[in-house]
Amino acid sequence: MTHPALALDDVVHQRVRLALLGAITEGRKVEFTFLRDRLDLTDGNLSRHLQVLEDAGYVRSTKGFEGRRPRTWLSVTPLGRQAYRAEIESLKLIVAEFERRQLG
Amino acid sequence: MTHPALALDDVVHQRVRLALLGAITEGRKVEFTFLRDRLDLTDGNLSRHLQVLEDAGYVRSTKGFEGRRPRTWLSVTPLGRQAYRAEIESLKLIVAEFERRQLG
Repeated sequence: MTHPALALDDVVHQRVRLALLGAITEGRKVEFTFLRDRLDLTDGNLSRHLQVLEDAGYVRSTKGFEGRRPRTWLSVTPLGRQAYRAEIESLKLIVAEFERRQLG
Repeated sequence: MTHPALALDDVVHQRVRLALLGAITEGRKVEFTFLRDRLDLTDGNLSRHLQVLEDAGYVRSTKGFEGRRPRTWLSVTPLGRQAYRAEIESLKLIVAEFERRQLG
């Protein structure tokens, strides 16, 4: 039997992306600068992690304007929501395995 | 409020190391080749991840012989056990946050 952590998807499991996907799945559309400030990331770091999530088909970005300011909105795709849910299920298994051992 | 994932320690959270630390904390001492086969890793990959855990002071290695075969045994340090427990507590928060939202 292998440890449940081995089944994790690195695209979602990585610390920053896990926080990011958590924040994006909270709303319908979340603005780039809001995410950057909320997660205390640099523009570059946020862009890099969003790109990984977009490449995996988990997040979609939409560009537009708010008044005269260019904006980028991020939203989660059904696939991304499914990947986030699968991650949560794996985390539950890891916690359960730990607690089973504490009792044993 | 930031997402609980941002508080995670990458040394422990990374997928392979999370499985590794989980497997090492199961016994008193775990042999290198046992870990390698159990987690289905190459020697190089396992060595690299163990080095990260050793550098952080989470894992200790002991070299010796079993008959004439050289062996390396790995054990978790008190600091490593504490780091693993902290990771589990963070995972619980992430799961709880997800479930709170599902209900909300």
